[in-house]
Amino acid sequence: MKIAILPGDGIGPEIIEQAVRVLNALDEKFEMETAPVGGAGYEAHGHPLPEGTLKLAKESDAVLFGSVGDWKYDTLERALRPEQAILGLRKNLNLFANLRPAILYPELAGASTLKPEVVSGLDILIIRELTGDIYFGQPRGVRTAPDGAFKGEREGFDTMRYAESEIRRIAHVAFQAARKRDKRLTSVDKANVLETFQFWKDIVTDVHKEYPDVALDHMYVDNAAMQLVRAPKKFDVIVTGNMFGDILSDAAAMLTGSIGMLPSASLDANNKGLYEPSHGSAPDIAGKGIANPLATILSAAMLLRFSLNKAEQADRVENAVKKVLAQGLRTPDIYEEGTTKVGTKEMGDAVVKALA
Amino acid sequence: MKIAILPGDGIGPEIIEQAVRVLNALDEKFEMETAPVGGAGYEAHGHPLPEGTLKLAKESDAVLFGSVGDWKYDTLERALRPEQAILGLRKNLNLFANLRPAILYPELAGASTLKPEVVSGLDILIIRELTGDIYFGQPRGVRTAPDGAFKGEREGFDTMRYAESEIRRIAHVAFQAARKRDKRLTSVDKANVLETFQFWKDIVTDVHKEYPDVALDHMYVDNAAMQLVRAPKKFDVIVTGNMFGDILSDAAAMLTGSIGMLPSASLDANNKGLYEPSHGSAPDIAGKGIANPLATILSAAMLLRFSLNKAEQADRVENAVKKVLAQGLRTPDIYEEGTTKVGTKEMGDAVVKALA
Ligand SMILES: CC(C)[C@H](C(=O)O)[C@@H](O)C(=O)O
Ligand SMILES: CC(C)[C@H](C(=O)O)[C@@H](O)C(=O)O
Repeated sequence: MKIAILPGDGIGPEIIEQAVRVLNALDEKFEMETAPVGGAGYEAHGHPLPEGTLKLAKESDAVLFGSVGDWKYDTLERALRPEQAILGLRKNLNLFANLRPAILYPELAGASTLKPEVVSGLDILIIRELTGDIYFGQPRGVRTAPDGAFKGEREGFDTMRYAESEIRRIAHVAFQAARKRDKRLTSVDKANVLETFQFWKDIVTDVHKEYPDVALDHMYVDNAAMQLVRAPKKFDVIVTGNMFGDILSDAAAMLTGSIGMLPSASLDANNKGLYEPSHGSAPDIAGKGIANPLATILSAAMLLRFSLNKAEQADRVENAVKKVLAQGLRTPDIYEEGTTKVGTKEMGDAVVKALA
Repeated sequence: MKIAILPGDGIGPEIIEQAVRVLNALDEKFEMETAPVGGAGYEAHGHPLPEGTLKLAKESDAVLFGSVGDWKYDTLERALRPEQAILGLRKNLNLFANLRPAILYPELAGASTLKPEVVSGLDILIIRELTGDIYFGQPRGVRTAPDGAFKGEREGFDTMRYAESEIRRIAHVAFQAARKRDKRLTSVDKANVLETFQFWKDIVTDVHKEYPDVALDHMYVDNAAMQLVRAPKKFDVIVTGNMFGDILSDAAAMLTGSIGMLPSASLDANNKGLYEPSHGSAPDIAGKGIANPLATILSAAMLLRFSLNKAEQADRVENAVKKVLAQGLRTPDIYEEGTTKVGTKEMGDAVVKALA
């Protein structure tokens, strides 16, 4: 079993280092190989997703990804900017199913900007389609408007599109995930305005026939954004497209107030996956040794569970994280009075120790 | 001066009735004419936006709109569904600038699901472009995929597009609004993925040259959704496209916990406008006399201010609303212990009385 390790930019290398230490501390040993990605890829090979990095990712069983991006690359042409690496990996590896849990650890309830009674015990799973939609739809670009009220003017344009089988496969992932949880699935669309999402709704409704034990409901994306703020605990599993999922999964993560704790998995049809923290590269705190490595360590746990089929090892890692939280250890992003403030490395140390 | 009154469905007629009473209680008298819209339009004339209703809206100086929609129309073909009325009015009247204030009244701070310190004193203005984007972009539909990985399959598709002058005019509205407030504008885009929004960002940056006194920043839509939850008070004015604005303005409204209080204005280039509450038609409580009429009354105040140029009368209405809140009157949606629960009509009575 081989794991590709892609640290990336900003705090990426620091947090990945701790996750790798945790993996190395398990009984079973895994082959790991590191390669540059994002800004680091651009520095090393002139491209955010260097050929060698993509090759490594393809031939590995799973990818552990840190984070990419730094303001210093903002002036590069878009194709060379760090975030193209993550889009390229998703598309090239066919990672169509993005699983983003939004869980509020009881110890961290105070960190949320929402009232404790609204979010305590929050445990929702957002499943975002990740290789289709307006993210990749062709045609797109800047052109002279060929028709309409602004014909002849310069315009920017993109194409939203979803094919039937794309919707079917993500719907299956979502229904199956709901089956393992509270058996409730909310499909988020904008069927009242968009043809793509009326089509989405029809297909999801059709797939539902194969999962009569799961309760399905449909919600417009604007309403979903409201309900996430109003009563987030009412959701179990949410499934939606790439664009809406981008927005809603980040909003849901922020409800917890501890985005430094939230892992994510992006899977292909055979459970090969890329695992990364839900937070970004935080260049402002990079190199200071204060970043929270727990989202990355929990991403490694998801990697063990989904791609390497090592549920027991995954449980061990997740329990170790719970243990250090119970011990009161906190990186600055989740620090509260009465707890012990630690840095990135001490947090890694503590998790490794808690594994024993 | 003529005002078109379009009550619509659900609680629409009840809340409009109170707003009309408030308008009639002002010193100056306005001509008003009522017409059916949404489900009511469909019942009366077989179309959600009957010809006569559109004609009335066109020849009036402003439109006061209740709300449309009811589950019983869900099975109609899309072109006949109630929400097509609002899309049709926006497009036909060229109402490209949607102003959605999200204000938290001090008396209602407890209604929010967010902690008081995060939202107390919240006062942000979201400006949503309303006649372009993927809402109206052609081509769109369901077809056999002409190319790509799913060529030959059935697919749903839509086109996102923004022409230069569409972006320029909404940017001007936004910069001018920011000038009257705290002089800070956040343009929300997804320039890292979408060509349309890289173009948007470039044009907004260009328009900024004419407003050097306003501070402009750019934020990705996923981050904006997070920041609205994390620290909403950091925003002053937000400007964005139709689709992102739909999602963010509803999320922002829900932050206040009192969406029954929030008005909106949709303006054309000459300040002709359509005014409606930010909440929906709430068919579940229609006819019970318990709906909150204040968002509609405050929409009437915006109508006086923007379309009829009656700032003084607008102030009077807004002050009357503040007064009834200070008196402790609350419809059930904003009721808390220690306040006085009233119905739709009593709330209207109280505002009329407070005008005196
Ligand atoms: C970096 C960006 C392209 C990316 C996205 O929009 O998908 C990010 O926001 C994410 O959610 O992983
Ligand atoms: C009813 C619907 C078409 C509409 C929209 O999406 O614009 C509504 O959500 C709104 O925000 O006014």
